[in-house]
Amino acid sequence: MSKRRAWVFTLGTEVVRGIVVNTNAAFLGRRLSQLGFTVEGTISLVDDKELASRFLKYILSEYEPELIVTTGGLGPTHDDITLEVVAEALSKPLVLNNEALEMLKEKLASRGYELTKERVKMAYMPEGASPIPNPVGTAPGALIRHGRTTIVCLPGVPREMEEMWAYVENIIRGSTEVFMAEGSFVSVGVPEAALAPVLKRVYEAYSSTYIKSHPRGYELSNPVVEIYVSVTSTSDTSARALVKEICGKLVEEVVKLGGSIREFRC
Amino acid sequence: MSKRRAWVFTLGTEVVRGIVVNTNAAFLGRRLSQLGFTVEGTISLVDDKELASRFLKYILSEYEPELIVTTGGLGPTHDDITLEVVAEALSKPLVLNNEALEMLKEKLASRGYELTKERVKMAYMPEGASPIPNPVGTAPGALIRHGRTTIVCLPGVPREMEEMWAYVENIIRGSTEVFMAEGSFVSVGVPEAALAPVLKRVYEAYSSTYIKSHPRGYELSNPVVEIYVSVTSTSDTSARALVKEICGKLVEEVVKLGGSIREFRC
Repeated sequence: MSKRRAWVFTLGTEVVRGIVVNTNAAFLGRRLSQLGFTVEGTISLVDDKELASRFLKYILSEYEPELIVTTGGLGPTHDDITLEVVAEALSKPLVLNNEALEMLKEKLASRGYELTKERVKMAYMPEGASPIPNPVGTAPGALIRHGRTTIVCLPGVPREMEEMWAYVENIIRGSTEVFMAEGSFVSVGVPEAALAPVLKRVYEAYSSTYIKSHPRGYELSNPVVEIYVSVTSTSDTSARALVKEICGKLVEEVVKLGGSIREFRC
Repeated sequence: MSKRRAWVFTLGTEVVRGIVVNTNAAFLGRRLSQLGFTVEGTISLVDDKELASRFLKYILSEYEPELIVTTGGLGPTHDDITLEVVAEALSKPLVLNNEALEMLKEKLASRGYELTKERVKMAYMPEGASPIPNPVGTAPGALIRHGRTTIVCLPGVPREMEEMWAYVENIIRGSTEVFMAEGSFVSVGVPEAALAPVLKRVYEAYSSTYIKSHPRGYELSNPVVEIYVSVTSTSDTSARALVKEICGKLVEEVVKLGGSIREFRC
C-alpha cells in the first residue's frame, strides 16, 4: 500500500496556551488513521497570520502531503484568520465565494440575523475554494486543491467540526478502502525495558503494524505496562486476524518473561 | 516586556494518531504562558527520527525560540528516539552521560533491576546535556543549551512530566517575574459576529492582553458566547486589576447590545 500522508493544523492561541485541550487533533488523527492515512504531524499555532502562513507554506513545500486538515479560525472575530493564512500560503487571492455567501445568507435568514461586515468575512475564501456546508454553526468550511495536496478547513468548535467531517470523509476516501484494527492488553510483572526487545522483534516482523507500550506505574512493586497494537490492511477481516496473531505472539513472550496478562482485548 | 518565545514538541505516534489526547501540550502551554513565555506553537510528530530531527532543526533555525520543551520518547523501547532526534538536529554526538547513568543505576537498584542494554540507552544524551532527575519513573530528562535556545526534554507519561516540570521551572524562570491573570464571563443574546467589533476594539486598546470568544451554542434561540480575557504583567495586582477593568468594559458593551451576563468570573 502506498502511503497517503496527512498533516493536521490547529489555529488558535487558546489551544497553544492550553486554555483548551486539543481534542480536535486527536479526533482527526484517529479518523484519518482509520481511513488509511499516515498522519505525520499535528501542529497547533497561535493566531498570527504571518507565522501561520509561513509555517503552512513550509509544510506544503517540504512534505507535500496528500491532505492537510485545519481546524479553527473560520468565525467572524478579529483572530479568525485561517482562510487568509491559507490564501497567503498558496499565494492565492482571498475572494468573496458566492456559494459560501449563499450558505451564509440562508443560515442567517433562518436565525433572523443580518448580513453584517463581520459575517460576510466568513464567505471570503482562497480563490478556487469549494465551501463545505456547516449544519451546526454559521461559518462554512473550505476545500482547496493545490498541486498534489488537498487542504480542508474546518471550524474549531468540536460539534461543528465533527459533523462536517462526515461530508469531508466522502470526498477524501481513497479508491481502495483501508481498514484499521486495534487491540491491547496489560502486562503485569515485567518492566518496560525488558519488554522492549520483544516488542521490537515482533514489530519488525510485521509490516503496516504499530506496537506501543505505555507504562502505567506499579502495583505492589510489579510494573504494569499497557501494550497497544494496530494494523492497517485492505480488508477488515485480515486486519482483525493480524491483530489477534500479533497479540498472541506478544502474550506468549510476556508470559515467558514471567509476566501475567489482563484486560486482553485483541 | 520583551517576548520570551517558546515552542512545545511532542514525540509520539500514539498522540499524532489520536490514540492519546495531548494533555501534556496543554499543561505546558498553560504553565509557560503563566511564566510569561509567548508559546508560538505546539507540535506533535510521529516517532520518525529523520522527520522529527529535520523539523526540530527547522524550528531552531527559523524561529530561534528561547525555549523548546519536548515530551515523550525518553523510555527504553525502540520508538523512544527523542534524545537521538535532538542530537541529530543540533549536530551533536549522542554520548553516554555519566550523571544520567548514575541516576539510572540508583533508580534501578532501588527497584532491584539490572542495568541491561535497553536501560543504558536512557542515559545516552546529546553531548553537553544536563540530566533532569525523574522522581516518578526511570528515564531521566535532559536540558541542553544551544545558542540562544534552551531545549528541555521530558518524558511523555503525564505524572512524570508534571513532577519534573517543577524542577525545570526554577531553571527557566526569568529574572523579572511575570504574572498572568485570567477572567471570563458568558454573554447570552448577542451573536458572536455582533460581539466581534467590540472585542476587537477593546483588544486593540490594551497591550499584553488576550481576548477570545467561544460560541457555546444556543438557548431558546439566544446565542450563548463565552468571553475569555487574560493579561500578563510584572505584578500580580496590576494583572488582576487590568482583567477586572477589561471585563468591566466588555460587559458594558455586551449589555448595550442587548445581551445578558452570567458566570461572571473576573
